[in-house]
Amino acid sequence: MKYCPNCAAVLTIKIPADDSRKRHVCEACGSIHYQNPRNVVGSIPVYGQQVLLCRRAIEPRHGYWTLPAGFMELGESTSHGAARETLEEAGAEVKIGPLYSLLNVPHAEQVHLFYLATMNTPEFSAGEESLEVALFNEADIPWNELAFPTVKQTLEWFFADRAAGNFETGKEFHVRSRDILPSERI
Amino acid sequence: MKYCPNCAAVLTIKIPADDSRKRHVCEACGSIHYQNPRNVVGSIPVYGQQVLLCRRAIEPRHGYWTLPAGFMELGESTSHGAARETLEEAGAEVKIGPLYSLLNVPHAEQVHLFYLATMNTPEFSAGEESLEVALFNEADIPWNELAFPTVKQTLEWFFADRAAGNFETGKEFHVRSRDILPSERI
Repeated sequence: MKYCPNCAAVLTIKIPADDSRKRHVCEACGSIHYQNPRNVVGSIPVYGQQVLLCRRAIEPRHGYWTLPAGFMELGESTSHGAARETLEEAGAEVKIGPLYSLLNVPHAEQVHLFYLATMNTPEFSAGEESLEVALFNEADIPWNELAFPTVKQTLEWFFADRAAGNFETGKEFHVRSRDILPSERI
Repeated sequence: MKYCPNCAAVLTIKIPADDSRKRHVCEACGSIHYQNPRNVVGSIPVYGQQVLLCRRAIEPRHGYWTLPAGFMELGESTSHGAARETLEEAGAEVKIGPLYSLLNVPHAEQVHLFYLATMNTPEFSAGEESLEVALFNEADIPWNELAFPTVKQTLEWFFADRAAGNFETGKEFHVRSRDILPSERI
């Protein structure tokens, strides 16, 4: 960010009055251009004992497997974004359940949120951003070909919680949450 | 957003190739400037039976009461942001617990996240953005002088869950979550 999006003047990086952090400040029009982390919203689409994964047709991590997820858009909620991304990337209409995992990725300036989701029928198709889409049993998850550590961690938590019976009717659970370190990049 | 932050050319609003939404596109340098919702992170600081609230010294909602919260910064996690805002606005060092509520505010292009938090001592002080800070028993919460619907809803859920015994040791709970409508603006 070099130029003011409001007036095109060259921006200064400085700590504004009443602030404690360096910001992009326009000395010409007085505007301050804050930058904030972005949310990546997605789902864990479940059909019976299987989970739906997408193989990425785009960078980063072209060719690797992911849960359907993408950047949250203006004007939508986190759950609507998760349903939208699942439809766009995996061609699957899901019923969104509770928030399951929240993973902070501070070095990427992102927060990843995954919702439990139910597929009523095994209908899906690869969207423009996917090479292929497939349902996996736990034993067949391509652990060494997953795209992101947040997807790996979410699937690990999911199968552990399922084995422990934590998804049984009436049970509640805290959101599974932790911070991802730069060294976990895969 | 009128000018390209990279090259200062006038921006065009159009749907880029391989996209389905209008974006701010620079025809000069080819960059696309996405806009995404921002996270507001905060805490429910609990001392015994009391909850800590701040009276706002800034707009919007100057003079009204809020849970300590503010925009998440680059390079931090949601929970670190919640602890930082609690220290900055309320002068309280808290132990951050599980994520408690996630409220989407699509019309404000925000997601509000509140963490349960514990105060070991009743030490607090008004930061620059607060007129005063005080501990409240449930019976004394200034319901008609709260700053935001997300704060009101979070406090309502909190006291209902506490009355139901849902915070007792070993119990887990889903994140309390819903979307806030424009008509709920207070």
